[in-house]
Amino acid sequence: MSIVDDVRLAGRLADAAGEAIRPLFRSDFAEEAKADASPVTEADRAAEAVMRAIIEAERPDDGIVGEEYGTRKEGASRTWVLDPIDGTISFIAGRPIFGTLIALLQDGFPVLGIIDQPIAGERWVGRIGEGTTLNGKPVKTRACRSLEDATLATSSPHYFDAEQADAYMSLAQKIAGDKRQGMIVYGGDCYNYGLLAAGHIDIVCEAGLELFDFAALVPVVEGAGGTMCDWAGEPLHAGSTGEVIAMGDQARLEDVLEAMGLGDGIGSGLGDIHALPPGHGQL
Amino acid sequence: MSIVDDVRLAGRLADAAGEAIRPLFRSDFAEEAKADASPVTEADRAAEAVMRAIIEAERPDDGIVGEEYGTRKEGASRTWVLDPIDGTISFIAGRPIFGTLIALLQDGFPVLGIIDQPIAGERWVGRIGEGTTLNGKPVKTRACRSLEDATLATSSPHYFDAEQADAYMSLAQKIAGDKRQGMIVYGGDCYNYGLLAAGHIDIVCEAGLELFDFAALVPVVEGAGGTMCDWAGEPLHAGSTGEVIAMGDQARLEDVLEAMGLGDGIGSGLGDIHALPPGHGQL
Repeated sequence: MSIVDDVRLAGRLADAAGEAIRPLFRSDFAEEAKADASPVTEADRAAEAVMRAIIEAERPDDGIVGEEYGTRKEGASRTWVLDPIDGTISFIAGRPIFGTLIALLQDGFPVLGIIDQPIAGERWVGRIGEGTTLNGKPVKTRACRSLEDATLATSSPHYFDAEQADAYMSLAQKIAGDKRQGMIVYGGDCYNYGLLAAGHIDIVCEAGLELFDFAALVPVVEGAGGTMCDWAGEPLHAGSTGEVIAMGDQARLEDVLEAMGLGDGIGSGLGDIHALPPGHGQL
Repeated sequence: MSIVDDVRLAGRLADAAGEAIRPLFRSDFAEEAKADASPVTEADRAAEAVMRAIIEAERPDDGIVGEEYGTRKEGASRTWVLDPIDGTISFIAGRPIFGTLIALLQDGFPVLGIIDQPIAGERWVGRIGEGTTLNGKPVKTRACRSLEDATLATSSPHYFDAEQADAYMSLAQKIAGDKRQGMIVYGGDCYNYGLLAAGHIDIVCEAGLELFDFAALVPVVEGAGGTMCDWAGEPLHAGSTGEVIAMGDQARLEDVLEAMGLGDGIGSGLGDIHALPPGHGQL
């Protein structure tokens, strides 16, 4: 089985997920709270079920880690990591900036990733060492001369705990300079990483992510010339903590880590933004 | 000139703005900082210029208030209020959830409003006392039984000053209950109000808005059965402060004001989230 076969299979998974999701978007879908109190809809479940069925039929020896239906064949050297709807809250709110995430891990490291937005009809496909495409056309991250010129994105301030929020806000203030808002976009989940891969956003900084939230993003961002790492600057893998930085221009990574005060404990004090209690992964 | 003629003209303004904006989306457009340090692109300017030219030719006696080119015929009883791109940061980041806002004010109160998303091809048209359509089909807000069942949206935590942030965070915590994130979507600007009008979001709570940010939203939300007001519960008009609440279900408005501690000074303490200095209006 070649990587080309895997890319083709991953595309079929995304097609199948999109077919399950599209009829339910902005419809009267069933919705409930999971054990961790995060929401799940019939669209999340239907999309993951159809992807798992395809993998189990065509790659019976591969492992699967999925947000909704858990782990199959734990410890397999090849593992598919699935998030049927990353950005479930955006999906529920009717915003076409959620995504289906599909990753293939080899020995714990992502080598192939897809971000698929089935309403806008946008699909990013990334392979480590090979390149990233958006709807079949190659995309590249852009250069970033300084943090003052950068556009920063994060999904929600509530995903940070107290210490993480301090670090994030230090970065946000560096980006904003003397402006109130600065070039900082909120919301967006996986979609922000696709936009970074296509050269429209420079930095994404998040915390509280699970493997299924970030695995597919790594090949998309790195295939496009960017870099992803944890908040210590280390590569992301199946055991990473869920503190994630994506950079379009790797040359600014040290500036970001310095702005976040990582290593010396300096923060800006985000106060009670972390008063909402911790959850489990993003939605 | 009947209101039907005004609706038709407003549609032509939105068409013209969309034609100016679409070719520039995700392109290498010119961008600079305005005097208040907020960003503006050639798309904002081109879209407002083409709309003003149409109004000046076809409604020479009407006033105009526009985000980029200011006020014409101040004090006119009929005034068009234009925000060529509400959500400029989203536009710059390549996210299809910004919008062109067009409002007609009669004696300072909005009577007609359009939210147009030219990439997704979505147009909300609202008239006070008449109804709201999305791409020609009537839309309605939904009922909301309690704040614990509600979906809340706001564009960015940085638009709140210290006191406003306290009030907002009290509401966010009420919505989230024992969950970290709760049903709270960030980002989205005017697009959130369109989704509220179509029954997908229950509450939008924002501050720091200018007339051109909120005028068009009022007829869209109220035409769909919702309500908009300032943080004192008063109707929005040309002199409002820019603290805005939109409710899909008016029956929950008192619960929202109570959760925000408005009137008794109770807040939750958002800390240094307001350390970014104040700006002028949203982007």
